[in-house]
Amino acid sequence: MFLLLFLVPAALALWPNPHSVSYGTSALILSPTFWIHWASTTPAPGDVTAAISRTMAELYTDNLQRLVVGRANADLPALAYANSLPMIHLEIIGNSPIKSIMAEATCILGERDESYTLTIPADGTPGMLQANTTLGLFRGLTTFSQLWYSSGGVAAIFPYNSFFPGSSMIYTVQAPVMITDTPAYPYRGLLLDTARNFFPVADLYRTLDAASYVKINTFHWHITDSQSFPLTVAAFPELSQYGAYSAVQTYSLQDVQDIINYAGARGIDVMLEIDTPGHTASIWESHPEYVACYNEAPWTTYANEPPAGQLRFAVPEVLNFTQQMFASVLSTLPSTLFSTGGDELNTACYVNDTIFQDALTASGQNFSQALNTFVLGTHDTVRAAGKTPAVWEEMLLVQNVSLGLDTLVIVWISSEDALAIAEKGYKMIHGPSDYFYLDCGGGAWLGNDTNGNSWCDPFKTWQKAYSFDPLQNLTASQYSLVLGGQQLLWTEQSGPENVDPIIWPRAAASAEVFWTGANGPDGLPRNSSEALERLHDVRYRMVARGINAINLQPEWCALRPGECNLV
Amino acid sequence: MFLLLFLVPAALALWPNPHSVSYGTSALILSPTFWIHWASTTPAPGDVTAAISRTMAELYTDNLQRLVVGRANADLPALAYANSLPMIHLEIIGNSPIKSIMAEATCILGERDESYTLTIPADGTPGMLQANTTLGLFRGLTTFSQLWYSSGGVAAIFPYNSFFPGSSMIYTVQAPVMITDTPAYPYRGLLLDTARNFFPVADLYRTLDAASYVKINTFHWHITDSQSFPLTVAAFPELSQYGAYSAVQTYSLQDVQDIINYAGARGIDVMLEIDTPGHTASIWESHPEYVACYNEAPWTTYANEPPAGQLRFAVPEVLNFTQQMFASVLSTLPSTLFSTGGDELNTACYVNDTIFQDALTASGQNFSQALNTFVLGTHDTVRAAGKTPAVWEEMLLVQNVSLGLDTLVIVWISSEDALAIAEKGYKMIHGPSDYFYLDCGGGAWLGNDTNGNSWCDPFKTWQKAYSFDPLQNLTASQYSLVLGGQQLLWTEQSGPENVDPIIWPRAAASAEVFWTGANGPDGLPRNSSEALERLHDVRYRMVARGINAINLQPEWCALRPGECNLV
Repeated sequence: MFLLLFLVPAALALWPNPHSVSYGTSALILSPTFWIHWASTTPAPGDVTAAISRTMAELYTDNLQRLVVGRANADLPALAYANSLPMIHLEIIGNSPIKSIMAEATCILGERDESYTLTIPADGTPGMLQANTTLGLFRGLTTFSQLWYSSGGVAAIFPYNSFFPGSSMIYTVQAPVMITDTPAYPYRGLLLDTARNFFPVADLYRTLDAASYVKINTFHWHITDSQSFPLTVAAFPELSQYGAYSAVQTYSLQDVQDIINYAGARGIDVMLEIDTPGHTASIWESHPEYVACYNEAPWTTYANEPPAGQLRFAVPEVLNFTQQMFASVLSTLPSTLFSTGGDELNTACYVNDTIFQDALTASGQNFSQALNTFVLGTHDTVRAAGKTPAVWEEMLLVQNVSLGLDTLVIVWISSEDALAIAEKGYKMIHGPSDYFYLDCGGGAWLGNDTNGNSWCDPFKTWQKAYSFDPLQNLTASQYSLVLGGQQLLWTEQSGPENVDPIIWPRAAASAEVFWTGANGPDGLPRNSSEALERLHDVRYRMVARGINAINLQPEWCALRPGECNLV
Repeated sequence: MFLLLFLVPAALALWPNPHSVSYGTSALILSPTFWIHWASTTPAPGDVTAAISRTMAELYTDNLQRLVVGRANADLPALAYANSLPMIHLEIIGNSPIKSIMAEATCILGERDESYTLTIPADGTPGMLQANTTLGLFRGLTTFSQLWYSSGGVAAIFPYNSFFPGSSMIYTVQAPVMITDTPAYPYRGLLLDTARNFFPVADLYRTLDAASYVKINTFHWHITDSQSFPLTVAAFPELSQYGAYSAVQTYSLQDVQDIINYAGARGIDVMLEIDTPGHTASIWESHPEYVACYNEAPWTTYANEPPAGQLRFAVPEVLNFTQQMFASVLSTLPSTLFSTGGDELNTACYVNDTIFQDALTASGQNFSQALNTFVLGTHDTVRAAGKTPAVWEEMLLVQNVSLGLDTLVIVWISSEDALAIAEKGYKMIHGPSDYFYLDCGGGAWLGNDTNGNSWCDPFKTWQKAYSFDPLQNLTASQYSLVLGGQQLLWTEQSGPENVDPIIWPRAAASAEVFWTGANGPDGLPRNSSEALERLHDVRYRMVARGINAINLQPEWCALRPGECNLV
């Protein structure tokens, strides 16, 4: 016989890693009468009450055994004499008025307070979760729910499990736990494109659930594109009526509000994007007079993918239409952020377009001047609604639009472009394709492309995303321009059928990069070997919660931290 | 206003393309009293009756509108005056005894008869499906179910829909249809690895359903590997008791029979693989005395991935054990095929293994001779059970084992290796990683591998798989050695959560390559532009049937054949 000892990992499942954390080595079980106590005299807002209920449910339904060889069996001896946690108190500190999670999550980016402190004593006395805001409390509840495991089916054979007859114990092995936490960056997002392929509301709900589990705080909703226009616009209902794939493949006004509210209750702000003036071929379906080069062949000349079609931005009526469309949508959005898009504008589209060229001539402007007029005009509309515009990097770096300095610029083409944005003094959101594009590596999708490859091959692994340094290439004086970042899913080859496994747990990587920052709570630089142990746990817990997150490795590896590293 | 005309595609949704087919241009609706009539005097076997029931259910639940702009609306005018199909007769021709689908599907590879003829008149008279076997009839039913669409929710506004009050019409637009069909190759498989990560029985059922939709006829079940041993072996229950990830992550004797029966009833033979003598570290958990270099570090020296561990094949007791294990399993398998594996044998594993080296010395054999003894010994056991052994290519090309000429050799390392196999005169199954590996392109999965890539990057698109020529590199005299081929999913980064989208509809590519052969029914070489129209349909129909098959393109492209080609 051979014997081999495996080290039981000390790290458990917190993700993203908190700013500061200390663990003990005591087992602690949840009391059968455990409850979460709202300790303020002011009644809890409705979304806080709902979050408490969800947390309670997760504790009892995750049913996740610890990822070690032997699973929960390894912990049973320690549980025999464990104290039990009777409750945690939730306390808002300070004197600010208590608002809903959603109100806190949708306020101005720099003013959100997501910090909290969490203390779980080992001695059987109540725990304490404190924060300045309900949003902070919600982040703390998310952390709290990640501390606990189930003794699973094995509990039945264990005599000490008298608390839960016929059930399993919920426990942690690392009490006491003391956590002080606050995010390193205010913007931690996820982009989903619902235009190339459509996603029913239920799929967005599930995606928002998963995002909230790793403290992502912004859903960058790329809701329209050249392929379809599923967004119902009150002022222009014909846009989705003709531009959506079908009547059922639309987001009604109520759907959008439902999604915003669902996200808000989970600490997530929705930054809607109506991409302009490119990526607008679907507007041709209802307003052909506003769109140049619709589906012109060969598409390669007029667009990065079929179908071609872009707004005739030099036509005054087109700016007027776009402003009215934006205004109609903006009035329904609680967020202070709105993206007007601006990527991949194709100039060839306009060369032979008489309507565009005539308008340009009539305006006395050149191409750049007319684009400037259009973009700044739409941004005026965004600001008039009390919001801050965001744009893709080309608006600044390629088209040289004289954007207001409040504008957020989103990096996507290359991580190296951050420096140029910083040098121009703009705030930025990192979403570089070389680290964060979730769709890369899926192969060519054009019909007759036998040997083609994904344009941004290879696949961007979680390790690659995790290695991203938000400050790379920047000088210290530019650091404050970095608001955060996000992973992104463009959906040429995606839909409801693969949205879970292509996003999760990968998108947890950037969630930790931008929450935890450069160093882990141990003060050492983040590293993927340490992170993997926790990320396995994130994945298994997501699966327990109904998210089809993929296996990162064979389960053999998940149970044996460090055994499946590159050597 | 601009106007743009789209061509309505002539090709509909048959996949794989039949050997010979002719379509008309008449619309034909299913009669509200449509039924499938078993025309023989001998009662239908149970799995035929079940297949008829499933086909009827699919007709009424697929609810798939045709993939054209305007969807079913485009067809409504033609449906107004359409005849309706009252029934099809199912007829076994010839005088052979009528057997179950499963009996026909599991008989000797070269003797299976999957041919059928299907005639659907346009004039409202009954259709006819004829075959020599129930297996042929089942293939014909599969084809039949692909002909039909639903007029969907729009039917309600259409006055002619009096047949189905409150429901939609089921119709085809291409009657009459006359099909004569038979596969080009007898082996059309799909490999799934259930050892690196475990798949519950329900996931295998769903995978088998999808495979049957595209006439795949072999499930190559890689059931054990170094990471886990989920297979319950009656003679050695300890193998799964200790070698499985957990007690619930096992396949019981009944599970295996259930899966075999489920597959058989769908025209699919199950070729089980117990990989030996490599890929056997999980046997160490119950029989450490049989396994060399278990989890030795660094694993890179001893295995292609962790954990290392291989059978001490030079030890007589190990051969004896393996033969008894195989015999115990083989006695439960109806298939005439069984794979003993044989890939990636690592020689370093044995260099310092005293037990192995002592046994080698005692045997008076060198390494190759001992391996020959082991492999041929296990193949004797396979043949004694009345079955034909299959092996991975290294057994022949690297280890030079003197395999019996009946042995099937499976290509995997490179498509170029087919020639060497043929030159040695062996029959082969194509599964080359450069065309058919479904796991390629998923990125590095080792824990600390920030910039690593999938070993077989890039992603193998359906177009790439579809471009495979089974006879490439071979001379005409060697063509008969090609039995067929398969796409393969190794599950380092897969599990139940992504098994559908990573396999489907991609694995339909090889299903058509090996069913349809080099030329389509139009006599022209298969090409991916033509195929894509039909493959979209395969994908949408799979989704309708509960398979999470991915979008191959934006839906805009799916509705507009040819518009999203590389130009």
